[in-house]
Amino acid sequence: MTRPPSDKNLTVAVLGPLGTYTHEAAYQQFGPSVEYLEKTTIKDVFDALSSNADLSVVPQENSIFGSVIETYDVLRGADPGFVRGEVMLRIQHCLLTRQGVKLHDIQTVMSHEQALGQCQRFLKSHLPLATLVKTSSTAAAAKTVVDSPANCAAIASKICVTLFDGLTVQYEGIQNEASNFTRFFIVVKDRKASFPSLLVTELRHALIQVSTQTLPGTGADISQLISSLNLRVVRLDRRPAVTNVPFHDIYLVEVQDAERYKSVLEWTSEVDGAISRIGVLGGNAKLIGLW
Amino acid sequence: MTRPPSDKNLTVAVLGPLGTYTHEAAYQQFGPSVEYLEKTTIKDVFDALSSNADLSVVPQENSIFGSVIETYDVLRGADPGFVRGEVMLRIQHCLLTRQGVKLHDIQTVMSHEQALGQCQRFLKSHLPLATLVKTSSTAAAAKTVVDSPANCAAIASKICVTLFDGLTVQYEGIQNEASNFTRFFIVVKDRKASFPSLLVTELRHALIQVSTQTLPGTGADISQLISSLNLRVVRLDRRPAVTNVPFHDIYLVEVQDAERYKSVLEWTSEVDGAISRIGVLGGNAKLIGLW
Repeated sequence: MTRPPSDKNLTVAVLGPLGTYTHEAAYQQFGPSVEYLEKTTIKDVFDALSSNADLSVVPQENSIFGSVIETYDVLRGADPGFVRGEVMLRIQHCLLTRQGVKLHDIQTVMSHEQALGQCQRFLKSHLPLATLVKTSSTAAAAKTVVDSPANCAAIASKICVTLFDGLTVQYEGIQNEASNFTRFFIVVKDRKASFPSLLVTELRHALIQVSTQTLPGTGADISQLISSLNLRVVRLDRRPAVTNVPFHDIYLVEVQDAERYKSVLEWTSEVDGAISRIGVLGGNAKLIGLW
Repeated sequence: MTRPPSDKNLTVAVLGPLGTYTHEAAYQQFGPSVEYLEKTTIKDVFDALSSNADLSVVPQENSIFGSVIETYDVLRGADPGFVRGEVMLRIQHCLLTRQGVKLHDIQTVMSHEQALGQCQRFLKSHLPLATLVKTSSTAAAAKTVVDSPANCAAIASKICVTLFDGLTVQYEGIQNEASNFTRFFIVVKDRKASFPSLLVTELRHALIQVSTQTLPGTGADISQLISSLNLRVVRLDRRPAVTNVPFHDIYLVEVQDAERYKSVLEWTSEVDGAISRIGVLGGNAKLIGLW
């Protein structure tokens, strides 16, 4: 896929360190020609949009573990950025070693605790005697293997092979569960921020913050507000609004238009119309994503 | 409140160790005449219903931190127990010491990391020189203070004073945020399990598992299914169904009838009718709570 020359100057903030699955997801979308900026927390990835990042990539949901709360805790806020796209990544844990190493040489396997757990079956059958060492991230494990003795291996994303010299993939897809996907959001600063030319999705999506009146038991309930959108709802998430009213919530409603080839203009006007209907019913609604 | 003699024999499983806020919530509801069974994980608290517990008390939601995922991960399952009540607890962190200790004697304050964080302002103004020591739970800190030198204090629930001899409350409500509530569910084994006489709530509630067809994009969407219940929705939570279809979800829908003094029979028949409407639209629905 040829990328337009303007992408050369894009800066994309990702949850770091480089070599994580968030970085792999961003790389899958934007390739080698953009600059990747590694950030320590999901909040920092969003905040980078106010300084030096054009786009941010954050994990939104994993097919086994569910929604990423840290991401929704920013999306529920007053200044949540604006979602402009999504990337779906199949989580494929790989066994990485230095080049030339054979499987029977491996005595130590390093990775993040979760990845070690997710590859238990492979480790038990292929490397039952190896010592398992926990690291702060899968990428940190891969980085360590580069300067370690040849009997060390890491479980990490294969993007690490392109990042750290001298590594090779021994096995790909060694996780217990074959069906393990993570979905990421691509976020820009606000609705007015320019739309990068390389984001193309087949179906139209929107993300909307919806909340009822703060006095519980009055006015329309959350189900009435959401159904008044009259759009196909594909995800509903709830986070505390954290106002002085305990248990008042912000809902994050993701909608999708299944009618392919609808123009961006048609979809935008349909979503804007839906949001204005929430106001008529006495609820609050704010558009925080359109892609 | 006089309790019927039958309650004497009740066994109530709680998230342990005894002295935690879950224990305090259960105690607020059931008092001193029942037996409390401490369990290590939320899953274990639910599982106790299949062996020696009549009731289980689990945290459902905190007003600042949101839903308790471990609880919803059981509620989304095939055999989630049956919610028969709720308890709301104001989280009031207390400074506890051995009896006779003065504030200026205190040199060490022990508690769970979160409680220490939530009382930062009090500690800074009243005990700026004290050493802070992290413990595995607030109850563990209180227990330790009993056998420690007199210059040790714990931040914990005041129920610890009734559990561990020789402790006294120095200060009550020392947390930064005045408005910090946790809501708990009272769960029995299944719908047929006998309803304890001491549970009385003013408003009728129900909890319903709802999911769409597994093929995305077909049939009614989740918003249509939920609005077809035609009941007042007060909470909507989403967890992955973890089937072989990635990103297929189970929604936990909590509804409430604002019409006071409706009979249990009327409410039960209204909820059962609502659930059968979901089936007509091609969705799945299962009643997992009624109180």
